[in-house]
Amino acid sequence: MKGKFISIEGIEGAGKSTQMSVISDYLNRHQIPHIITREPGGTPLAEEIREILLKPRESGMSIDTELLLMFASRAEHLNTKILPALNVGQWVISDRFVDATFAYQGGGRGVAEQRIQALADWTLQGLMPDLTLLFDLPVETGQQRVRQRAAALDRFEQEKVEFFEKIRNCYLQRANQSPDRISVIDASQALGSVETAVRAALDKLRLS
Amino acid sequence: MKGKFISIEGIEGAGKSTQMSVISDYLNRHQIPHIITREPGGTPLAEEIREILLKPRESGMSIDTELLLMFASRAEHLNTKILPALNVGQWVISDRFVDATFAYQGGGRGVAEQRIQALADWTLQGLMPDLTLLFDLPVETGQQRVRQRAAALDRFEQEKVEFFEKIRNCYLQRANQSPDRISVIDASQALGSVETAVRAALDKLRLS
Repeated sequence: MKGKFISIEGIEGAGKSTQMSVISDYLNRHQIPHIITREPGGTPLAEEIREILLKPRESGMSIDTELLLMFASRAEHLNTKILPALNVGQWVISDRFVDATFAYQGGGRGVAEQRIQALADWTLQGLMPDLTLLFDLPVETGQQRVRQRAAALDRFEQEKVEFFEKIRNCYLQRANQSPDRISVIDASQALGSVETAVRAALDKLRLS
Repeated sequence: MKGKFISIEGIEGAGKSTQMSVISDYLNRHQIPHIITREPGGTPLAEEIREILLKPRESGMSIDTELLLMFASRAEHLNTKILPALNVGQWVISDRFVDATFAYQGGGRGVAEQRIQALADWTLQGLMPDLTLLFDLPVETGQQRVRQRAAALDRFEQEKVEFFEKIRNCYLQRANQSPDRISVIDASQALGSVETAVRAALDKLRLS
């Protein structure tokens, strides 16, 4: 049987890393074989592309280049890691997937949705996550958490609050358009409540 | 007035580098301001992507990844170097451009032409070279030249003769489809004859 594909989304500071552990614990308890991965990155080559994307640069990067690199990394991740795992029945949990591109490059940087959709169609050829957990919280709360934890801010984290507001709104809009796939979880709640919501979403997917 | 955009194409060993100098000398003699560049690469960021593309790897690279990286590099090259130069009236001479992707990834690796065309349309949005000089010669002749000069063969140069035959045929087929843009030059001739053919093609473009 094919494994299930879960993507984890949300703005910086939404607590995605913590919840990845909760998900992994849940799957272990239910004896579901799975792999944990992330984007951009997830394979050695995709990690090299991730470095190019995240490295701060004086001259920036053309937005078309950024998008094509994102999808290059995603194509490698998909073809060499995600699909092979799903095909042997493992579940795949990815910290970010294609919704992040719509949110960051579309909502955040203003690229037309259809430009992104064209590359998504080209690269994914129909594959989408079975479940996307969107960890949502006010941008200010997320920013405070990031500032507490980060030694140095990378190129994306340096962006302004307004940028993250656009990203958050785009994520919520996509959740609104795909309510069956995207489950919005209030990440500003107490940690215990967030975990309960995550487990409920996983129960639903596991028993579907 | 906008500058003219010339791309130089051909299989390994076709003598492109030598002819780039001939072209540059010609343009200097006619006091035409120009820049010389190359693909994949041409800007610091695009050169970083080039390194990822050319580095020999045990596990290879998915063909989708290779294509998306090629076009990421091309987008950066186009938006930050080629278009700005053309817009201030400089001519741009690029060692390889989009025909190389059709030839190497399409003809060579068997990617469907429409998959490449989709990314070309996405990235170039209609821009094509005013003139493409295709230096054509038998694969064996090209291979002999490469073996004489190379200290170490990169990932593409390690490929087999059969691979280069497919590339050569694809180049010739594209020239056949776009005779007004692509000028085929017999690169197996004596150097003086090649140079004469190059200058004739440049005369035609300059006086058009």
